[in-house]
Amino acid sequence: VSAVAVVSDVVRDGKPVIGYGFNSNGRYAQEGILNDRMIPRLSNAQPEELLTDDGSNFDPFKAWQLMMTNEKPGGHGERSAAVGTVDMALWDLVAKIEEKPLYRLLADRYHDGQADSKVWVYAAGGYYHPGKDNRQLQDELKSYLDLGYRTVKMKVGGVPLEEDCKRIEAALEVVENGDQLAVDANGRFDVNEAIRFAEAIGPYGLKWYEEPGDPLDYALLAEVAAASTTPIATGENLFSLPDAQNLIRYGGLNPERDVLQI
Amino acid sequence: VSAVAVVSDVVRDGKPVIGYGFNSNGRYAQEGILNDRMIPRLSNAQPEELLTDDGSNFDPFKAWQLMMTNEKPGGHGERSAAVGTVDMALWDLVAKIEEKPLYRLLADRYHDGQADSKVWVYAAGGYYHPGKDNRQLQDELKSYLDLGYRTVKMKVGGVPLEEDCKRIEAALEVVENGDQLAVDANGRFDVNEAIRFAEAIGPYGLKWYEEPGDPLDYALLAEVAAASTTPIATGENLFSLPDAQNLIRYGGLNPERDVLQI
Repeated sequence: VSAVAVVSDVVRDGKPVIGYGFNSNGRYAQEGILNDRMIPRLSNAQPEELLTDDGSNFDPFKAWQLMMTNEKPGGHGERSAAVGTVDMALWDLVAKIEEKPLYRLLADRYHDGQADSKVWVYAAGGYYHPGKDNRQLQDELKSYLDLGYRTVKMKVGGVPLEEDCKRIEAALEVVENGDQLAVDANGRFDVNEAIRFAEAIGPYGLKWYEEPGDPLDYALLAEVAAASTTPIATGENLFSLPDAQNLIRYGGLNPERDVLQI
Repeated sequence: VSAVAVVSDVVRDGKPVIGYGFNSNGRYAQEGILNDRMIPRLSNAQPEELLTDDGSNFDPFKAWQLMMTNEKPGGHGERSAAVGTVDMALWDLVAKIEEKPLYRLLADRYHDGQADSKVWVYAAGGYYHPGKDNRQLQDELKSYLDLGYRTVKMKVGGVPLEEDCKRIEAALEVVENGDQLAVDANGRFDVNEAIRFAEAIGPYGLKWYEEPGDPLDYALLAEVAAASTTPIATGENLFSLPDAQNLIRYGGLNPERDVLQI
């Protein structure tokens, strides 16, 4: 399940208004969890359990409470992806029913109407493929720059350190400076490998060094963050509020420098 | 999915030898994860990817590696329950093929043949039900003692503190002493409620005080453990090795006193 559609009975131009939710990694938005637990709880609800008090729109907070009824606390990863996808679809639906973009609705409701008109984005690529050489890596990253991206990210940790350094040096030839290139180890390293890698890439002045070790190993992260001159990025594999709190408490990150991806 | 059966092609007395795995909470051993990811990886394997080097039996370690192929690291709760149920069934199968009890096989392979001949057990009950009074709670706990259990556990945290204390005092009338009664809050309390509860039950001398707050909130746990004279029990809602390591590192538990349930 990568995409969820919530079809409402609000009709506009002869068609029902539909909210869409998306999860980039479908295997973590489990069909079974949605079909067995989350969707039945929503389908069996009375209108007042899902709608705002004046009945004019859906209330995603009420829907979230309903979906989580009888769920145990804890970092149940696939559950949060399942619930989150439905939650996203409901917010999309709420904004469409109010006929404004979601960013505007959220800003109006929760941020005194203030919203950024621009969003910083980057292109993630630079994966390993059998037979892919550094010239092909350069061509790939160039293609992202040609699309207008100013920052690109590549995978590291799949080959020996010296070889990864050559890949990074090849990538640096196609961007203007190290601040336009991030690297992502996808949790591959143990603490010693992660520190050795941090030391090796320090001179390149990269944008960030992502997910050096297991995403829940906060002690490892604290050691790596202390040893790294490159900003550390992490957080995308946390699946509960307590996990995120633990990252802040124990991960040794520098709020002035490091990057949370939650 | 609460139960998994692994049917082998080993035939004994005209019937295939079958291993069984069980998870007490079926909703966390997701059918979708098993059907979409874990079982196909096992079904598509070559015999040498699943069997010991001499081909005489299954190798659960190889099977676990296969099931976890291309899985991201992290505390993916429902995945670990799904994989664990199959893992349990495979170990049951391995022991049956060797024609010895699993505890004996594990002791022979990994513990110099030493095994405890007895296992400490307790009866978990004492749930809240509408209309259930303290006399009925006593009758329930007595029924466990009549079955031979020496220790019983009851739920707490579902009613105001004073009322829970009366329930605990009623329960203490049917056991010989506080060491035969444990209480379980199922993660219900915030840190202040949890400490207030710890202080209230201190005088009873109970066996343990289980899961006072969110199972991943190690900072809460450390505060409660420091304030409690009753042993703390926790761990059953952790779903990864790093989670368990974090509990040890940050949870403030006393290895001489507290109870890990992992």
